[in-house]
Amino acid sequence: MDITELSRGLDTIWVVLTAAMILLMEGGFALLEAGFVRQKNAVSIIMKVFVDIAFGALVFYLVGFGIMYGKDIGGLFGTSGFLMKGDLSHIVLNISNETYWLFQCAFVIAVISIVSGAVAERIHFRAYILFTIAMTGLIYPLAGHWVWSGSGWLGKLGMIDFAGSAVIHGLGGFAALAAAIFIGPRIGKFMPDGKVNIVPPSNLPLASVGAFILWFGWFGFNAGSTLSATHSGIGHIAITTMLSAASGGATCILFTMLRYKKADPPMVINGSLAGLVGITAGCAFVSDSVAILIGAVCGIAMVLATEMLERKKIDDPVGAFAVHGISGSIGTLAVGLFAVPELTANVGQGYYGLFYGGGWSLLGVQALGLATVAVWGFAITWLFLWLIRKIMPVRVSKDEELIGLDVGIHGVPAYSDNSDFIDLDRVKNGN
Amino acid sequence: MDITELSRGLDTIWVVLTAAMILLMEGGFALLEAGFVRQKNAVSIIMKVFVDIAFGALVFYLVGFGIMYGKDIGGLFGTSGFLMKGDLSHIVLNISNETYWLFQCAFVIAVISIVSGAVAERIHFRAYILFTIAMTGLIYPLAGHWVWSGSGWLGKLGMIDFAGSAVIHGLGGFAALAAAIFIGPRIGKFMPDGKVNIVPPSNLPLASVGAFILWFGWFGFNAGSTLSATHSGIGHIAITTMLSAASGGATCILFTMLRYKKADPPMVINGSLAGLVGITAGCAFVSDSVAILIGAVCGIAMVLATEMLERKKIDDPVGAFAVHGISGSIGTLAVGLFAVPELTANVGQGYYGLFYGGGWSLLGVQALGLATVAVWGFAITWLFLWLIRKIMPVRVSKDEELIGLDVGIHGVPAYSDNSDFIDLDRVKNGN
Amino acid sequence: MDITELSRGLDTIWVVLTAAMILLMEGGFALLEAGFVRQKNAVSIIMKVFVDIAFGALVFYLVGFGIMYGKDIGGLFGTSGFLMKGDLSHIVLNISNETYWLFQCAFVIAVISIVSGAVAERIHFRAYILFTIAMTGLIYPLAGHWVWSGSGWLGKLGMIDFAGSAVIHGLGGFAALAAAIFIGPRIGKFMPDGKVNIVPPSNLPLASVGAFILWFGWFGFNAGSTLSATHSGIGHIAITTMLSAASGGATCILFTMLRYKKADPPMVINGSLAGLVGITAGCAFVSDSVAILIGAVCGIAMVLATEMLERKKIDDPVGAFAVHGISGSIGTLAVGLFAVPELTANVGQGYYGLFYGGGWSLLGVQALGLATVAVWGFAITWLFLWLIRKIMPVRVSKDEELIGLDVGIHGVPAYSDNSDFIDLDRVKNGN
Repeated sequence: MDITELSRGLDTIWVVLTAAMILLMEGGFALLEAGFVRQKNAVSIIMKVFVDIAFGALVFYLVGFGIMYGKDIGGLFGTSGFLMKGDLSHIVLNISNETYWLFQCAFVIAVISIVSGAVAERIHFRAYILFTIAMTGLIYPLAGHWVWSGSGWLGKLGMIDFAGSAVIHGLGGFAALAAAIFIGPRIGKFMPDGKVNIVPPSNLPLASVGAFILWFGWFGFNAGSTLSATHSGIGHIAITTMLSAASGGATCILFTMLRYKKADPPMVINGSLAGLVGITAGCAFVSDSVAILIGAVCGIAMVLATEMLERKKIDDPVGAFAVHGISGSIGTLAVGLFAVPELTANVGQGYYGLFYGGGWSLLGVQALGLATVAVWGFAITWLFLWLIRKIMPVRVSKDEELIGLDVGIHGVPAYSDNSDFIDLDRVKNGN
Repeated sequence: MDITELSRGLDTIWVVLTAAMILLMEGGFALLEAGFVRQKNAVSIIMKVFVDIAFGALVFYLVGFGIMYGKDIGGLFGTSGFLMKGDLSHIVLNISNETYWLFQCAFVIAVISIVSGAVAERIHFRAYILFTIAMTGLIYPLAGHWVWSGSGWLGKLGMIDFAGSAVIHGLGGFAALAAAIFIGPRIGKFMPDGKVNIVPPSNLPLASVGAFILWFGWFGFNAGSTLSATHSGIGHIAITTMLSAASGGATCILFTMLRYKKADPPMVINGSLAGLVGITAGCAFVSDSVAILIGAVCGIAMVLATEMLERKKIDDPVGAFAVHGISGSIGTLAVGLFAVPELTANVGQGYYGLFYGGGWSLLGVQALGLATVAVWGFAITWLFLWLIRKIMPVRVSKDEELIGLDVGIHGVPAYSDNSDFIDLDRVKNGN
Repeated sequence: MDITELSRGLDTIWVVLTAAMILLMEGGFALLEAGFVRQKNAVSIIMKVFVDIAFGALVFYLVGFGIMYGKDIGGLFGTSGFLMKGDLSHIVLNISNETYWLFQCAFVIAVISIVSGAVAERIHFRAYILFTIAMTGLIYPLAGHWVWSGSGWLGKLGMIDFAGSAVIHGLGGFAALAAAIFIGPRIGKFMPDGKVNIVPPSNLPLASVGAFILWFGWFGFNAGSTLSATHSGIGHIAITTMLSAASGGATCILFTMLRYKKADPPMVINGSLAGLVGITAGCAFVSDSVAILIGAVCGIAMVLATEMLERKKIDDPVGAFAVHGISGSIGTLAVGLFAVPELTANVGQGYYGLFYGGGWSLLGVQALGLATVAVWGFAITWLFLWLIRKIMPVRVSKDEELIGLDVGIHGVPAYSDNSDFIDLDRVKNGN
């Protein structure tokens, strides 16, 4: 046993454990989304989470990782590492590439899970599988390459996105927005006379616990992104993550008490998540106080964005865009405003945010990166859904939507009482 | 990379990971409490958990940590470290103060979460926010300072409370008792003719899973309290924690089979938790066999205390006092009886429990400390609730209680079926 | 602080954290099983999980660990280590025996939890307690001794079962099969006219989240089985575990879409678990591609096995045999086919699977070990249930089964609406 081996072991378990925490977030997404949608679609949304994790992991193994972290071509995409084979010698870490893969795999699954919420209750299952393949094999890996690969053009410009406010949440959020618009609102959500109906969440306790599991996983997300247990920023990342989440939740409690006269449970759930999303880019680089500010701004912005989407007649059942797209954007820009040189020096660079004497350059790069990722996420999602619609229906039939996707598509209700016995032959024959 | 840096990294990830596990316990509390209360209050109790974690973290950052661990005045309270600023040079750990803060923050949130259960189904939301601020900013930090700060008067007397049977659970449990008495029983719980009604838990599967999540988090709670991965007691702490919890659960299964002719699910759930609470003070200091004994005693005492509260017409919907107050007391005193010198030597002291030749001194200190914490927790909680009542209602109106706090206070039911569409304008106007 | 102490600390927290993750799997089992059974039995199945963890831990401490890892007699059983006392000097690890115990305890609880699902909705609670004692005190510890103790006859023959496809899942699965046959099908499952009824799961969202929690815990199961953070195989174990699970899930999605015209949620849930079970033996020893293959084969085999049991009129409510017995068998044999010498060399041996030039010898040993464990698990379970039936009913009465075990045996329903108030005296008297 020597110190090098010990150091590798230490970093390895740190990354494996935090990767497992991020993967548990799929359980959080499943609870959150099943709780927010109507009962009749609670299984169908969870089946999409299974698609995320099952197809997502395989496709990222086969294709995505190579495009994201393979040998770079022109700062645009990677060309090795498919099936973890080929030349990956440019990846120099204290952990094995396999360990690194697991962590990155957890990330890509999170991205596609963001989209799943926006298309809940109406997307067709087969179309969703195809879109998952596109997202995990191409859409996210390309954007990730640009920012995180070490050779990507945005990273080389100096864009900072520590754990993915832009690459994960911005991209996922704008993809979710595109998907929600493309597929259209749920039947009955917007009435012909202009009235807007809200769908009360079917199971708020489940949704809440989903948020707590996501909160837990976020410590893996942010602190684990150091990829090293001896990274001096871990404690700081942990405290900013906690404070921003708390601030997002507390702000939404107070803001909805003022605005709606009632602390609004779904908004409080999403407000905590907004705080978490917002701090993801800057967790290692902004001060504690700024973390609290980011959480507060993201919480309020999430509420306003949710209302705005309602007004624009865009139907995003779980608030995926308001939480991930908006807060991801705020968090990405906040780095350009508030990055503290002493903190960014931790990672070998001394970046200065606008308010810390750095001028407009970092903010400009952050804005450019955000715009790139957002436009890319929106446009390519639209394109892929358009292509998929050429070969199969993207949206379920009206009958399937009315009866619900659980019974309509998957042949089984989410919840059953005691009296049910179902004839097996009938089920097997798909009737 | 040198060995010092490696050692710091190792301790840092140990504390961050265990802190995250403790924070996940909020998801456990949410499930446990939502499962134990009636459907109509399932969201409202979870909203209180959001208050715990969101306001709790912020207030502890702004005020509580400084009072608890800041520069000591007279063994009574701390005076620096507000917003993590000022002189904290007296804290000498192998981890950063920020990492330490996260772990302590997870603790304070657990304390206030204990209280949330006792006032379930009837406390007013705004009053609960104020009480949360008091608990996390002052009540717990003061008691914590006395025992754990290194300069506090109880700690200097030699009180041992490894992970908080007294400071967390005793304090939280007696605060819960005071709050339950102050606010009075739920409508219909105790009938004018002396009959006692029980409220069947709305969702026992959720409550059970809450207990399993709490059990998981407790390994973070107890083993993480070493604050160091190289602490020689970690394995012992893990085994005593497991055995006491198992003993609490098994004992409650057998005891309720004897007493009620049926293994009683809510009692078994709480029995496991009672075992966990009971071992929290002594996990590092008592033998395996004593851990089993503590779990068994706490399990039975929890059942009897629950019955006693019913007889006394005190309404504690989730058994917060019976689980945390009683078992916390037993666990604190058990250290005075059963502390093993070889084990306590691990932490640089050689304490002797009464049954291991130490005489009455340690037991006396434990009893004094427990009494102090219990009286403090009870009295100050009563005082704060009394003060809050001066400015706003502490209890919801009769109508709100009958319709349930979910709809009455938060405007949305916990569970909705498929047919619901709600008009948005009506909701926004608070009607 | 020296490097030896650091290394011990590192391995200790690795094992404690992964053990805690495995213990959290009990929450996963509880959700999975409560979700799969009918509402009227949702609490009763969770009470069995409490029996698993509470009685299981105590019995394993008192008896099981000694039989499994105590001083060996003839390669058959251990004879020291009861209550962790006696000579355990033959256990030479970098972690303390107490830490080791916790990890092993988490394993034994998993085994008995497998069986709980197969007897759901009809086994008598007291009989289940007795069987749990037998399983955790004797049945599993003996089989574990043979394979894993270092002195057991199967281990000495060269059987490889890294984290327990055979010892945990094969044994548990065949015990579950025996128990399901012994106790007979649920009333109404198989009609006199030959029709087979299926019981729609009462709560698929809960069951799904149970699977995600199990998936999370599996990283503890497999990667933690290294017992050392510096084991060079951790990254590889993590990636094969992820790929096989994803492959099991994805395969079941596609296979049920082909076979039933609908992606079948319960099958997809169990398919992911089948992939996890299948990779458990070989996670450290097979290539990534083989991991994907194992997952796919296990997924399809699970579906076919589930159908076969239906045809054979064997009632296994949660698919315990199809998931654990079948996939455990496949995974055990797969090591004999696909073990890669370079990978097995990690653990000081260079095993060759049939397809890697090793001939039939390893495959033969794996088959012998699997057959031994399967026959042992099946036969001894049958024997114990037969013995238990001599002294008490193993199955609940027809009335209790029809009303459901929650109310029939435990006196409380899993779910209650708002209107219920129950008279305490009546409950206490067991009516």
